[in-house]
Amino acid sequence: MNLEKYISKIVMRAQKASRSLALTPTVEKNKALNLMARALLAQEKFLIRENQKDVDAARLNGYPMALIDRLTLNTKRVQAMADGLQDTARLKDPAGEVLKTFTRPNGLVIKKVRAPMGVVGIIYESRPNVTNDCIGLCLKSGNAVILRGGKEAICSNRAIFKVLQAALHKTKISPEAVQLIEVVDRRALDILLHQDKYVDLIVPRGGEGLIRFVVEHSYIPVVKHYKGVCHTYVSVNADIAMARKVCFNAKVQRPGVCNAMETLLVHEKVAKKFLPLMLADLTKAGVEIRGCAKTRQIMGLQVKKAIEKDWSEEYLDLILAVKVVKNTQEAIDHINSYGTKHSDAIITRNKLEAEHFLESVDSACVYVNASTRFTDGYEFGFGAEIGISTDKLHARGPMALEELTTYKYLIFGNGQVRS
Amino acid sequence: MNLEKYISKIVMRAQKASRSLALTPTVEKNKALNLMARALLAQEKFLIRENQKDVDAARLNGYPMALIDRLTLNTKRVQAMADGLQDTARLKDPAGEVLKTFTRPNGLVIKKVRAPMGVVGIIYESRPNVTNDCIGLCLKSGNAVILRGGKEAICSNRAIFKVLQAALHKTKISPEAVQLIEVVDRRALDILLHQDKYVDLIVPRGGEGLIRFVVEHSYIPVVKHYKGVCHTYVSVNADIAMARKVCFNAKVQRPGVCNAMETLLVHEKVAKKFLPLMLADLTKAGVEIRGCAKTRQIMGLQVKKAIEKDWSEEYLDLILAVKVVKNTQEAIDHINSYGTKHSDAIITRNKLEAEHFLESVDSACVYVNASTRFTDGYEFGFGAEIGISTDKLHARGPMALEELTTYKYLIFGNGQVRS
Repeated sequence: MNLEKYISKIVMRAQKASRSLALTPTVEKNKALNLMARALLAQEKFLIRENQKDVDAARLNGYPMALIDRLTLNTKRVQAMADGLQDTARLKDPAGEVLKTFTRPNGLVIKKVRAPMGVVGIIYESRPNVTNDCIGLCLKSGNAVILRGGKEAICSNRAIFKVLQAALHKTKISPEAVQLIEVVDRRALDILLHQDKYVDLIVPRGGEGLIRFVVEHSYIPVVKHYKGVCHTYVSVNADIAMARKVCFNAKVQRPGVCNAMETLLVHEKVAKKFLPLMLADLTKAGVEIRGCAKTRQIMGLQVKKAIEKDWSEEYLDLILAVKVVKNTQEAIDHINSYGTKHSDAIITRNKLEAEHFLESVDSACVYVNASTRFTDGYEFGFGAEIGISTDKLHARGPMALEELTTYKYLIFGNGQVRS
Repeated sequence: MNLEKYISKIVMRAQKASRSLALTPTVEKNKALNLMARALLAQEKFLIRENQKDVDAARLNGYPMALIDRLTLNTKRVQAMADGLQDTARLKDPAGEVLKTFTRPNGLVIKKVRAPMGVVGIIYESRPNVTNDCIGLCLKSGNAVILRGGKEAICSNRAIFKVLQAALHKTKISPEAVQLIEVVDRRALDILLHQDKYVDLIVPRGGEGLIRFVVEHSYIPVVKHYKGVCHTYVSVNADIAMARKVCFNAKVQRPGVCNAMETLLVHEKVAKKFLPLMLADLTKAGVEIRGCAKTRQIMGLQVKKAIEKDWSEEYLDLILAVKVVKNTQEAIDHINSYGTKHSDAIITRNKLEAEHFLESVDSACVYVNASTRFTDGYEFGFGAEIGISTDKLHARGPMALEELTTYKYLIFGNGQVRS
């Protein structure tokens, strides 16, 4: 196959379809989402059968259990995909919203309105539900979507895609508004990433290697989610009981996700009182502690020694790095140096200290007296999530429908000319 | 010189300075801007003397007059730079603005607030005033700035930079918040573009070659301004007198800028009446016409024939491509295919037709019954402009202070944990 021609056809079709999709009324988009949801449920057996091929291949290849779990579809997960599409149908359509209207002295009326982005490319790995969720969110926000999933999930992705695209035939939306790249060769990805004339946004979802590849090769703007090395800082002004509860939740409730705490920072004046209680809670829950020298002074040498690498490690596991700091400024500097601009928290009863922390920590979400686990499109009330951006451009933090739009200026005159 | 070390020092210093600049009160930033303005005026002779070296070298190298004009500093231009800084001091500080506040059912209060981007890199060519203007806008919006101008202007840029940085020594702002890359080697640029750990945004300003180089080599998010191939479409429903006035302004008032009209589209049913009048106006003003077959049928073969290349040409000169179209949809399709998503206009008295055009044309600024020449930060009332984005991500159309900021979420809890 000529890869260039293959990708070129896909992006040109997507762009063409995006033009009419952008003009499609909300009610028609919602109809499509609901038809798609029904089609998924009707084709459940087909989806699970096709998925089984991927699962069998993954087992044969000795892939880790965690990957096989992410890959697997079952009745519950197909239902969840269908529910997701119906939920998306119920969300407010962001396109067309008037963000601002202003009138200039010469009488020009300028409206800043939300508009679909155009064509969005999603690059992801082994979760087949991403195929479904991204098609739903992109359609609802008026964007054509090009999907490029991992090779481990190719049969599942093809099946989901086939079912959803078929549903579009029963609507006024062009089925070409959704495109699947079925070639898993990285060269195909590289060619896609150079199509800045046709594709408006690339969202990579997956491991650091994939995201790095996308960032280094893309001519198209990328909104990315690097890892989440999230911190909680327990100030000398903290409510100790609250700190124990919040830190425990941030580490233990779901350690495998990006908004879980990876490093605990503790003010030296509260460390002797707080750390024995906190680390006992955590150890009981099976958390391995890696402490700085001061932590080990307080807790004894049975606490494993943290090395430099631990401060920037995203464990995604029941492991926690612990550091005692001299003051709030040291905590802020540590977070800004080793963190990933994702989510960080302070536990304090002091308002001024909280404000300084909020202003100084350069992260998408900065918390006072709450668990970092709340960084999430659903928990923020956005009703959906396509990713969590650790970028500063375009979208920061949880990305949902609004973040899949751009804006344009509409200018209404009555013959104004510039002098 | 070890270029890697040189750039690495610059970006790390800028990042460090950006942290404290982000916390600097507006009044201190304004003081700095006013001191800088005074310093420019006080050092006018020095600035013009240093600039003369660049101008002499440009003459010796036989650079075109247009470039030498852009390069030249004189009393009026130094005054304009100083005025620009004082104007920027008077603008509203965008950082800290609360964009949204919402409370979640669990009591978490989430504030979305505007925050400085961090470190902004500006890559530009021969205009030395860019050095001044970008330092002013970045400082005001709380961003450290790294400047990399063209080799033709290196003496001028060094001089302006020296004067402005010296003024910072009289303020609480770190002089390291402004950085100038004095090595004009493209390898230095390439190294800078890989510093995504330290630099948050790259804005390239200049010719297509430079912008393309930046887009293809940058790991840092880029907001760019490609060329402006702007259209005006005269509908069958146009007020002919208004159309003549607006089109004339869009082409002739300042042909060398990106928001000037490059292609005129005319509905076939109005072409016979409109084109002879319009093209007579334009020809009288010295405009060369390049017409499609139908235009030449109407106007005679003395009108030069437009070739395919003309439809995507940014002339920046007194040249105009003219095409007769069958209907509004053909005009829209032409603009979306050949345009550069910058500024396009329709002249019509029909509201529905205007709305369809506004929705369908995929450009940053879409006009009804006004000249495309209004796409400009000052004309939009932003009080400043760092460029006009033809990108869809982050910022679209005129970019000023707000567009140099990002946002962050501040989340206030009282011990909330996720269940």
